[in-house]
Amino acid sequence: MSQAPSDIDDLIDLMARLPGLGPRSARRAVLRLIQKRGKLMQPLAQAMQGVADTARECLQCGNIGSDDLCKICASEKRANGEICVVEDVADLWAMERAGVFGGRYHVLGGTLSALDAIGPEDLRIPALVRRVTEEGINEVILALNATVDGQTTAHYIADELAERCAVTSLAQGVPIGGELDYLDDGTITAALKARKGF
Amino acid sequence: MSQAPSDIDDLIDLMARLPGLGPRSARRAVLRLIQKRGKLMQPLAQAMQGVADTARECLQCGNIGSDDLCKICASEKRANGEICVVEDVADLWAMERAGVFGGRYHVLGGTLSALDAIGPEDLRIPALVRRVTEEGINEVILALNATVDGQTTAHYIADELAERCAVTSLAQGVPIGGELDYLDDGTITAALKARKGF
Repeated sequence: MSQAPSDIDDLIDLMARLPGLGPRSARRAVLRLIQKRGKLMQPLAQAMQGVADTARECLQCGNIGSDDLCKICASEKRANGEICVVEDVADLWAMERAGVFGGRYHVLGGTLSALDAIGPEDLRIPALVRRVTEEGINEVILALNATVDGQTTAHYIADELAERCAVTSLAQGVPIGGELDYLDDGTITAALKARKGF
Repeated sequence: MSQAPSDIDDLIDLMARLPGLGPRSARRAVLRLIQKRGKLMQPLAQAMQGVADTARECLQCGNIGSDDLCKICASEKRANGEICVVEDVADLWAMERAGVFGGRYHVLGGTLSALDAIGPEDLRIPALVRRVTEEGINEVILALNATVDGQTTAHYIADELAERCAVTSLAQGVPIGGELDYLDDGTITAALKARKGF
Protein backbone atom coordinates (compact mmCIF):
# COMPACT_ATOMS: atom_id res chain seq x y z
CA MET A 1 0.00 0.00 0.00
CA SER A 2 2.41 2.70 1.15
CA GLN A 3 5.41 1.48 -0.87
CA ALA A 4 7.48 1.54 2.31
CA PRO A 5 9.76 -1.38 3.25
CA SER A 6 7.65 -4.27 4.54
CA ASP A 7 8.59 -3.93 8.22
CA ILE A 8 7.59 -0.25 8.13
CA ASP A 9 4.37 -1.21 6.33
CA ASP A 10 3.59 -3.71 9.09
CA LEU A 11 4.16 -1.00 11.70
CA ILE A 12 1.84 1.37 9.82
CA ASP A 13 -0.86 -1.33 9.65
CA LEU A 14 -0.65 -1.90 13.41
CA MET A 15 -0.69 1.83 14.19
CA ALA A 16 -3.75 2.29 11.94
CA ARG A 17 -5.69 -0.04 14.26
CA LEU A 18 -5.48 2.45 17.13
CA PRO A 19 -8.61 4.52 17.76
CA GLY A 20 -8.27 7.99 16.24
CA LEU A 21 -5.70 6.95 13.64
CA GLY A 22 -6.47 5.88 10.07
CA PRO A 23 -4.09 4.65 7.35
CA ARG A 24 -3.01 8.18 6.40
CA SER A 25 -2.42 9.50 9.92
CA ALA A 26 -0.71 6.23 10.89
CA ARG A 27 1.70 6.81 7.99
CA ARG A 28 2.39 10.36 9.17
CA ALA A 29 2.91 9.14 12.73
CA VAL A 30 5.35 6.42 11.65
CA LEU A 31 7.34 8.87 9.51
CA ARG A 32 7.60 11.23 12.49
CA LEU A 33 8.68 8.30 14.66
CA ILE A 34 11.40 7.33 12.18
CA GLN A 35 12.63 10.91 11.99
CA LYS A 36 12.89 10.93 15.80
CA ARG A 37 14.21 7.42 16.24
CA GLY A 38 16.36 8.13 19.29
CA LYS A 39 14.23 10.64 21.16
CA LEU A 40 10.74 9.29 20.52
CA MET A 41 10.61 5.89 18.82
CA GLN A 42 13.02 3.98 21.06
CA PRO A 43 11.46 5.29 24.33
CA LEU A 44 7.94 4.67 22.99
CA ALA A 45 8.75 1.09 21.95
CA GLN A 46 10.27 0.39 25.35
CA ALA A 47 7.44 2.05 27.31
CA MET A 48 4.91 0.05 25.28
CA GLN A 49 6.75 -3.23 25.88
CA GLY A 50 6.98 -2.41 29.59
CA VAL A 51 3.27 -1.73 29.95
CA ALA A 52 2.40 -4.77 27.83
CA ASP A 53 4.46 -6.89 30.21
CA THR A 54 3.10 -5.52 33.49
CA ALA A 55 -0.38 -4.03 32.98
CA ARG A 56 -3.27 -6.12 34.23
CA GLU A 57 -6.82 -5.71 35.46
CA CYS A 58 -7.45 -5.37 39.19
CA LEU A 59 -9.09 -8.61 40.32
CA GLN A 60 -11.47 -6.68 42.56
CA CYS A 61 -12.63 -3.63 40.58
CA GLY A 62 -11.37 -4.04 36.99
CA ASN A 63 -9.16 -0.91 37.09
CA ILE A 64 -5.79 -1.18 35.36
CA GLY A 65 -2.61 -1.45 37.38
CA SER A 66 0.53 -3.52 37.69
CA ASP A 67 -0.58 -5.77 40.59
CA ASP A 68 -3.46 -8.10 41.38
CA LEU A 69 -5.06 -5.25 43.32
CA CYS A 70 -4.97 -1.71 41.89
CA LYS A 71 -3.66 1.17 44.01
CA ILE A 72 -7.18 2.33 44.90
CA CYS A 73 -8.36 -1.11 46.03
CA ALA A 74 -5.09 -1.60 47.93
CA SER A 75 -5.48 1.68 49.83
CA GLU A 76 -7.30 1.37 53.17
CA LYS A 77 -8.10 5.11 53.01
CA ARG A 78 -10.44 4.45 50.09
CA ALA A 79 -12.56 1.97 52.10
CA ASN A 80 -15.25 4.53 53.08
CA GLY A 81 -18.26 2.36 52.37
CA GLU A 82 -18.91 3.86 48.92
CA ILE A 83 -18.44 2.26 45.50
CA CYS A 84 -18.62 4.29 42.30
CA VAL A 85 -19.72 2.19 39.29
CA VAL A 86 -18.28 3.24 35.91
CA GLU A 87 -18.46 1.77 32.41
CA ASP A 88 -14.75 1.64 31.67
CA VAL A 89 -11.32 2.63 32.92
CA ALA A 90 -11.36 5.95 31.03
CA ASP A 91 -14.40 6.97 33.09
CA LEU A 92 -12.62 5.94 36.30
CA TRP A 93 -9.67 8.15 35.32
CA ALA A 94 -12.08 11.03 34.57
CA MET A 95 -13.60 10.67 38.07
CA GLU A 96 -10.14 10.58 39.66
CA ARG A 97 -9.07 13.70 37.75
CA ALA A 98 -12.01 15.52 39.33
CA GLY A 99 -10.48 14.41 42.64
CA VAL A 100 -13.76 14.62 44.54
CA PHE A 101 -14.63 10.96 45.17
CA GLY A 102 -12.95 9.26 48.14
CA GLY A 103 -14.27 5.71 47.81
CA ARG A 104 -13.49 2.75 45.59
CA TYR A 105 -14.61 1.91 42.07
CA HIS A 106 -16.18 -0.91 40.13
CA VAL A 107 -15.50 -1.01 36.37
CA LEU A 108 -18.29 -2.80 34.49
CA GLY A 109 -16.37 -3.11 31.23
CA GLY A 110 -19.34 -2.01 29.11
CA THR A 111 -23.11 -1.72 29.29
CA LEU A 112 -25.95 -4.20 29.03
CA SER A 113 -27.00 -4.60 25.42
CA ALA A 114 -29.65 -6.96 24.11
CA LEU A 115 -28.49 -6.33 20.54
CA ASP A 116 -24.90 -7.37 21.25
CA ALA A 117 -26.03 -10.15 23.63
CA ILE A 118 -24.18 -8.59 26.58
CA GLY A 119 -25.78 -9.74 29.82
CA PRO A 120 -25.03 -9.08 33.52
CA GLU A 121 -22.49 -11.94 33.71
CA ASP A 122 -20.38 -10.27 30.97
CA LEU A 123 -20.17 -7.05 32.98
CA ARG A 124 -18.85 -7.83 36.47
CA ILE A 125 -22.35 -7.18 37.86
CA PRO A 126 -22.41 -10.38 39.96
CA ALA A 127 -19.00 -9.36 41.35
CA LEU A 128 -20.47 -5.95 42.27
CA VAL A 129 -23.33 -7.57 44.19
CA ARG A 130 -20.79 -9.76 46.01
CA ARG A 131 -18.61 -6.77 46.90
CA VAL A 132 -21.56 -4.82 48.30
CA THR A 133 -22.18 -7.62 50.79
CA GLU A 134 -18.59 -8.58 51.60
CA GLU A 135 -17.16 -5.06 51.92
CA GLY A 136 -20.09 -3.67 53.90
CA ILE A 137 -20.94 -1.00 51.35
CA ASN A 138 -23.47 1.70 52.35
CA GLU A 139 -23.86 3.46 49.03
CA VAL A 140 -23.32 2.59 45.36
CA ILE A 141 -23.00 5.65 43.12
CA LEU A 142 -23.84 4.94 39.47
CA ALA A 143 -21.61 7.11 37.26
CA LEU A 144 -22.71 5.64 33.93
CA ASN A 145 -22.90 7.55 30.67
CA ALA A 146 -26.19 9.36 30.02
CA THR A 147 -26.91 7.15 27.00
CA VAL A 148 -29.79 4.71 26.52
CA ASP A 149 -27.57 1.68 27.20
CA GLY A 150 -25.92 3.38 30.17
CA GLN A 151 -29.26 4.24 31.75
CA THR A 152 -30.69 0.74 31.09
CA THR A 153 -27.68 -0.71 32.89
CA ALA A 154 -28.12 1.77 35.74
CA HIS A 155 -31.76 0.71 36.23
CA TYR A 156 -30.78 -2.98 36.21
CA ILE A 157 -28.08 -2.48 38.83
CA ALA A 158 -30.36 -0.30 40.97
CA ASP A 159 -32.95 -3.12 40.98
CA GLU A 160 -30.34 -5.76 41.88
CA LEU A 161 -28.98 -3.73 44.79
CA ALA A 162 -32.25 -2.19 45.99
CA GLU A 163 -32.46 -4.17 49.23
CA ARG A 164 -28.74 -4.29 49.94
CA CYS A 165 -27.62 -0.63 50.08
CA ALA A 166 -28.44 2.91 48.97
CA VAL A 167 -28.10 3.43 45.22
CA THR A 168 -27.58 6.93 43.77
CA SER A 169 -26.56 8.29 40.40
CA LEU A 170 -24.78 11.41 39.16
CA ALA A 171 -27.05 14.46 38.85
CA GLN A 172 -28.14 15.47 35.35
CA GLY A 173 -28.37 19.15 34.43
CA VAL A 174 -26.62 22.13 32.93
CA PRO A 175 -22.83 21.57 32.75
CA ILE A 176 -20.64 24.19 34.47
CA GLY A 177 -19.88 26.91 31.91
CA GLY A 178 -22.71 25.64 29.69
CA GLU A 179 -24.95 28.05 27.80
CA LEU A 180 -28.66 27.25 27.64
CA ASP A 181 -28.82 28.23 23.97
CA TYR A 182 -26.43 25.39 23.07
CA LEU A 183 -28.01 22.67 25.25
CA ASP A 184 -30.30 19.97 23.89
CA ASP A 185 -33.95 19.79 24.97
CA GLY A 186 -33.40 16.62 27.04
CA THR A 187 -30.77 18.27 29.23
CA ILE A 188 -32.88 21.38 29.79
CA THR A 189 -35.89 19.19 30.69
CA ALA A 190 -33.79 17.17 33.14
CA ALA A 191 -32.31 20.34 34.68
CA LEU A 192 -35.74 21.92 35.11
CA LYS A 193 -37.26 18.81 36.68
CA ALA A 194 -34.34 18.56 39.13
CA ARG A 195 -34.35 22.28 39.98
CA LYS A 196 -33.41 23.17 43.52
CA GLY A 197 -33.91 26.05 45.99
CA PHE A 198 -31.47 28.94 45.49
CA MET B 1 -2.77 13.97 34.93
CA SER B 2 -4.68 10.87 33.98
CA GLN B 3 -4.50 9.16 37.40
CA ALA B 4 -3.14 6.05 35.73
CA PRO B 5 -0.11 4.18 37.12
CA SER B 6 3.08 6.12 36.32
CA ASP B 7 4.37 3.77 33.60
CA ILE B 8 1.04 4.01 31.79
CA ASP B 9 1.13 7.80 32.22
CA ASP B 10 4.59 7.88 30.64
CA LEU B 11 3.30 5.84 27.71
CA ILE B 12 0.34 8.22 27.27
CA ASP B 13 2.72 11.23 27.29
CA LEU B 14 4.87 9.66 24.56
CA MET B 15 1.86 8.69 22.46
CA ALA B 16 0.48 12.22 22.76
CA ARG B 17 3.59 13.51 20.95
CA LEU B 18 2.60 11.70 17.75
CA PRO B 19 1.03 13.89 15.04
CA GLY B 20 -2.74 13.51 15.06
CA LEU B 21 -2.96 12.43 18.70
CA GLY B 22 -3.57 14.74 21.67
CA PRO B 23 -3.69 13.89 25.38
CA ARG B 24 -7.27 12.63 25.23
CA SER B 25 -6.91 10.47 22.12
CA ALA B 26 -3.55 9.17 23.39
CA ARG B 27 -5.36 8.02 26.54
CA ARG B 28 -8.01 6.26 24.46
CA ALA B 29 -5.35 4.64 22.30
CA VAL B 30 -3.40 3.37 25.32
CA LEU B 31 -6.54 1.95 26.94
CA ARG B 32 -7.36 0.12 23.71
CA LEU B 33 -3.78 -1.16 23.59
CA ILE B 34 -3.99 -2.46 27.17
CA GLN B 35 -7.29 -4.17 26.43
CA LYS B 36 -5.64 -5.88 23.46
CA ARG B 37 -2.27 -6.59 25.06
CA GLY B 38 -1.61 -9.86 23.26
CA LYS B 39 -3.02 -9.15 19.82
CA LEU B 40 -2.10 -5.50 19.36
CA MET B 41 0.20 -4.08 22.03
CA GLN B 42 2.92 -6.77 22.01
CA PRO B 43 3.16 -6.90 18.20
CA LEU B 44 3.14 -3.09 17.99
CA ALA B 45 5.90 -2.72 20.58
CA GLN B 46 8.01 -5.30 18.78
CA ALA B 47 7.38 -3.84 15.32
CA MET B 48 8.32 -0.40 16.63
CA GLN B 49 11.50 -1.66 18.24
CA GLY B 50 12.40 -3.49 15.04
CA VAL B 51 11.93 -0.44 12.84
CA ALA B 52 13.76 1.76 15.36
CA ASP B 53 16.72 -0.63 15.17
CA THR B 54 16.89 -0.99 11.37
CA ALA B 55 15.35 2.07 9.66
CA ARG B 56 17.78 4.54 8.17
CA GLU B 57 17.95 7.15 5.44
CA CYS B 58 19.24 6.16 2.00
CA LEU B 59 22.68 7.79 1.61
CA GLN B 60 21.88 8.67 -2.00
CA CYS B 61 18.28 9.94 -2.10
CA GLY B 62 17.09 10.31 1.53
CA ASN B 63 14.32 7.69 1.22
CA ILE B 64 13.80 5.42 4.23
CA GLY B 65 14.94 1.81 4.12
CA SER B 66 16.94 -0.72 6.05
CA ASP B 67 20.20 -0.48 4.05
CA ASP B 68 22.66 2.24 3.04
CA LEU B 69 20.92 2.35 -0.35
CA CYS B 70 17.12 2.18 -0.51
CA LYS B 71 15.43 -0.38 -2.76
CA ILE B 72 14.77 2.17 -5.48
CA CYS B 73 18.36 3.44 -5.60
CA ALA B 74 19.63 -0.16 -5.50
CA SER B 75 17.49 -1.19 -8.49
CA GLU B 76 19.21 -0.83 -11.87
CA LYS B 77 15.76 -0.76 -13.54
CA ARG B 78 15.09 2.62 -11.96
CA ALA B 79 18.18 4.20 -13.57
CA ASN B 80 16.28 5.72 -16.52
CA GLY B 81 17.95 9.15 -16.46
CA GLU B 82 15.10 10.80 -14.52
CA ILE B 83 15.08 12.06 -10.94
CA CYS B 84 11.86 13.11 -9.20
CA VAL B 85 12.47 15.69 -6.44
CA VAL B 86 10.07 15.57 -3.48
CA GLU B 87 9.88 17.38 -0.15
CA ASP B 88 9.68 14.39 2.16
CA VAL B 89 9.32 10.62 2.27
CA ALA B 90 5.52 10.77 2.51
CA ASP B 91 5.48 12.48 -0.90
CA LEU B 92 7.79 9.79 -2.31
CA TRP B 93 5.36 7.12 -1.09
CA ALA B 94 2.45 9.02 -2.66
CA MET B 95 4.29 9.06 -6.02
CA GLU B 96 5.06 5.33 -5.72
CA ARG B 97 1.42 4.54 -4.92
CA ALA B 98 0.45 6.19 -8.20
CA GLY B 99 2.88 3.71 -9.78
CA VAL B 100 3.51 5.85 -12.86
CA PHE B 101 7.08 7.09 -12.34
CA GLY B 102 9.90 4.74 -13.34
CA GLY B 103 12.97 6.71 -12.28
CA ARG B 104 14.68 7.48 -9.00
CA TYR B 105 13.91 10.06 -6.33
CA HIS B 106 15.62 12.77 -4.37
CA VAL B 107 14.10 13.68 -0.98
CA LEU B 108 14.89 17.26 0.00
CA GLY B 109 13.78 16.89 3.61
CA GLY B 110 11.88 20.20 3.61
CA THR B 111 11.68 23.47 1.68
CA LEU B 112 13.79 26.59 1.60
CA SER B 113 12.59 29.03 4.22
CA ALA B 114 14.15 32.39 5.02
CA LEU B 115 12.05 32.63 8.20
CA ASP B 116 13.32 29.31 9.59
CA ALA B 117 16.84 29.94 8.22
CA ILE B 118 16.71 26.80 6.05
CA GLY B 119 19.15 27.18 3.14
CA PRO B 120 20.11 24.90 0.23
CA GLU B 121 22.79 23.09 2.31
CA ASP B 122 20.13 21.99 4.81
CA LEU B 123 18.07 20.36 2.05
CA ARG B 124 20.29 17.95 0.10
CA ILE B 125 20.29 20.42 -2.84
CA PRO B 126 24.10 20.24 -3.33
CA ALA B 127 23.76 16.44 -3.35
CA LEU B 128 21.08 16.74 -6.05
CA VAL B 129 23.36 18.86 -8.25
CA ARG B 130 26.15 16.29 -7.77
CA ARG B 131 23.83 13.39 -8.66
CA VAL B 132 22.67 15.10 -11.87
CA THR B 133 26.26 15.20 -13.06
CA GLU B 134 27.47 11.84 -11.77
CA GLU B 135 24.44 9.76 -12.75
CA GLY B 136 24.04 11.31 -16.21
CA ILE B 137 20.52 12.59 -15.55
CA ASN B 138 18.52 13.95 -18.50
CA GLU B 139 15.50 15.30 -16.65
CA VAL B 140 14.72 16.43 -13.12
CA ILE B 141 10.99 16.44 -12.31
CA LEU B 142 10.05 18.79 -9.47
CA ALA B 143 7.14 17.26 -7.53
CA LEU B 144 7.03 19.84 -4.75
CA ASN B 145 3.91 20.94 -2.93
CA ALA B 146 1.99 23.80 -4.53
CA THR B 147 2.69 26.08 -1.56
CA VAL B 148 4.69 29.33 -1.50
CA ASP B 149 7.71 27.63 0.11
CA GLY B 150 7.44 24.65 -2.24
CA GLN B 151 7.35 26.85 -5.33
CA THR B 152 10.21 29.05 -4.07
CA THR B 153 12.30 25.93 -3.64
CA ALA B 154 11.30 24.70 -7.10
CA HIS B 155 12.45 27.98 -8.70
CA TYR B 156 15.77 27.84 -6.83
CA ILE B 157 16.46 24.26 -7.96
CA ALA B 158 15.42 25.04 -11.54
CA ASP B 159 17.96 27.90 -11.60
CA GLU B 160 20.72 25.69 -10.17
CA LEU B 161 20.15 22.92 -12.71
CA ALA B 162 19.27 25.10 -15.72
CA GLU B 163 22.45 24.38 -17.66
CA ARG B 164 22.88 20.78 -16.56
CA CYS B 165 19.64 19.02 -17.60
CA ALA B 166 15.97 19.53 -18.43
CA VAL B 167 13.86 20.62 -15.43
CA THR B 168 10.09 20.06 -15.38
CA SER B 169 7.41 20.22 -12.71
CA LEU B 170 4.06 18.50 -12.12
CA ALA B 171 1.17 20.08 -14.04
CA GLN B 172 -1.25 22.24 -12.10
CA GLY B 173 -4.97 22.14 -12.89
CA VAL B 174 -8.30 20.58 -12.04
CA PRO B 175 -7.86 17.36 -9.99
CA ILE B 176 -9.48 14.20 -11.41
CA GLY B 177 -13.03 14.03 -10.04
CA GLY B 178 -12.86 17.69 -9.00
CA GLU B 179 -15.85 20.00 -9.43
CA LEU B 180 -15.21 23.56 -10.62
CA ASP B 181 -17.66 24.97 -8.11
CA TYR B 182 -15.50 23.75 -5.24
CA LEU B 183 -12.10 24.80 -6.65
CA ASP B 184 -10.25 27.92 -5.53
CA ASP B 185 -9.60 30.79 -7.95
CA GLY B 186 -5.88 30.08 -8.15
CA THR B 187 -6.42 26.52 -9.38
CA ILE B 188 -8.99 27.59 -11.97
CA THR B 189 -6.64 30.34 -13.19
CA ALA B 190 -3.74 27.85 -13.48
CA ALA B 191 -5.96 25.31 -15.28
CA LEU B 192 -7.21 27.91 -17.76
CA LYS B 193 -3.71 29.23 -18.50
CA ALA B 194 -2.44 25.68 -19.10
CA ARG B 195 -5.43 24.63 -21.22
CA LYS B 196 -4.71 22.19 -24.02
CA GLY B 197 -6.27 21.10 -27.33
CA PHE B 198 -9.09 18.56 -26.98
